[in-house]
Amino acid sequence: MYKLVLIRHGESTWNLENRFTGWTDVDLTSTGIEQAKTAGQLLKAEGYEFDVAYTSVLKRAIRTLWHVLDEMDRTWVPVVHHWRLNERHYGGLQGLNKADMAKQYGEAQVLQWRRSYDVPPPALEASDPRSERSDVRYAKLQPEQIPLTECLKDTVERVIPFWNESMAPAIKSGKRIVVTAHGNSIRALVKYLDNIADDEIVGVNIPNGIPLVYELDENLKPIRHYYLGDAQAAAKAASAVASQGKA
Amino acid sequence: MYKLVLIRHGESTWNLENRFTGWTDVDLTSTGIEQAKTAGQLLKAEGYEFDVAYTSVLKRAIRTLWHVLDEMDRTWVPVVHHWRLNERHYGGLQGLNKADMAKQYGEAQVLQWRRSYDVPPPALEASDPRSERSDVRYAKLQPEQIPLTECLKDTVERVIPFWNESMAPAIKSGKRIVVTAHGNSIRALVKYLDNIADDEIVGVNIPNGIPLVYELDENLKPIRHYYLGDAQAAAKAASAVASQGKA
Repeated sequence: MYKLVLIRHGESTWNLENRFTGWTDVDLTSTGIEQAKTAGQLLKAEGYEFDVAYTSVLKRAIRTLWHVLDEMDRTWVPVVHHWRLNERHYGGLQGLNKADMAKQYGEAQVLQWRRSYDVPPPALEASDPRSERSDVRYAKLQPEQIPLTECLKDTVERVIPFWNESMAPAIKSGKRIVVTAHGNSIRALVKYLDNIADDEIVGVNIPNGIPLVYELDENLKPIRHYYLGDAQAAAKAASAVASQGKA
Repeated sequence: MYKLVLIRHGESTWNLENRFTGWTDVDLTSTGIEQAKTAGQLLKAEGYEFDVAYTSVLKRAIRTLWHVLDEMDRTWVPVVHHWRLNERHYGGLQGLNKADMAKQYGEAQVLQWRRSYDVPPPALEASDPRSERSDVRYAKLQPEQIPLTECLKDTVERVIPFWNESMAPAIKSGKRIVVTAHGNSIRALVKYLDNIADDEIVGVNIPNGIPLVYELDENLKPIRHYYLGDAQAAAKAASAVASQGKA
C-alpha cells in the first residue's frame, strides 16, 4: 500500500483579498505561513517521511513546501518544481475581486466561471501585462502551452500527464511523495484518482494548508483518504472556500 | 565564457559560538539570514539568472539558498541537494569551541587540525551520538562513505567527483549555476579550479554570504574571479574567518 500526501498552499494575499489568482505569483499571508508550519508539524508528529516533494512554480506553493519541510527537519528532501502543478489559469479574471464580480455579473455567472467544468472565463490577451507569456520561468515552453485562460477540464488535461509520467512512476518505485499545490491542480488529481464525475468535482473543495492523505493500492487506486489533524476544522475550511464566490 | 557563482552559507549559530561544526546540522543566525538576503539582492541587482542551484544537505546552506532565490524572486529554480557538497567533517572536534581547544592544545595544534591539508582531526567513534551514520538523509550511502573525520584532502576527494560528474557538464551544457555550500567544500572547488597547491589552499579563506563569481573559459579554466559587492568588506570577512582558531 502506498501513501500520497496532497497539501493546498496556505492562505495567500489574494485568498485574503478574495481575488481570482490563477497563475499570478502572489505570496502567503502570515496566516498562510502558520498553516504551512502546522501542516509540517502534523506530518512530523505522525511520523511521515518523504523521498521526494512536488510543487508548482508559484511561490505560495513553494513557500508552503519550504515551511513544511523545515518543520519536519527535512529541508534536504529533493524537490521537483513543475508548471503543470500550477493553479488553474483564471484568464481575464486574474486580479479581480470575487465578490465585486458577483455584484456585477451575478453570483450564478461567477459560480459558473469558478465551478463549471468546461466553460473557461474570458481569455487574457497575450499582450495583457497580466499574461505570463514573457515570464522567464516559462521561457522553455511553447507559447501555446502557457494558457490565457482555463476551465477545470483544461487544468485536468495538463496535470494528469505529469501524474502519469512523473508522480505515479515515482510512487510505484517506492518513493514516498508529498505535493504542495493549488485548489484546482489538487482537484484535478482528486478527480482522476477517485474517478469523480465532471459535474461533481466542482463541489469538492480543498482547504488551505491541511494535509490530505490518500492511501493507494498497488495499482494506485484509492483505498481511502482523510485529512490530518482536526477533521471539523478541515470541513469548516473547505466550506469557507465554497462560499468565496458570494456577493 | 561561463560564469559560476559560489556562496558560503551565512553565519551559523556555531560560527557565532566559534565551535567546530562540520556535518552537524546547525542553523543560520539572524545575521546569517541577513547575509543570505544581501547576497540575493546583490545577484538580483547585477542581473544574474540561474538555471539550476546546487547545495549540500545541511540546512545552513539550504536556507542560505532559499533566501538568495527568494530575494531574486526565483524560488522556482531547480535545486540539487548533495552530500558531497557538505562541509568538511570535523570528526571528534565537532561541537567543541575553537578557542577552548586552542587554550588546551595550543594554537599550533588547532591550526594544524583546521588548516593542515592532509592531517585529519581525531575520528569520531561510529557509535558516537555525534556521528551521522544513523541520520536518515544518508541512509542510501555505504557506511564508509559517511566520514568519521576528514582532512581537507578527503573533502577535495569527495567534492571533485561531483563537480566532474554533475556540475561541470551542467555548465558546459549552458546552464547558469549557483552553489551554496561551506568553507571547505568551496575551498575544494577553488583549489581544483585554480590549481592551488596543497600548502597554499589552507590560507584561502571564504567569507560567509558573499557571492564569489568565477568566469570560466570553454574548458572551465578560470579567467578571473571576484566577490560581488564591497571588496573591502569581503576581505575583512575573510580575515575574520582566518582568526577564529586563536585563543
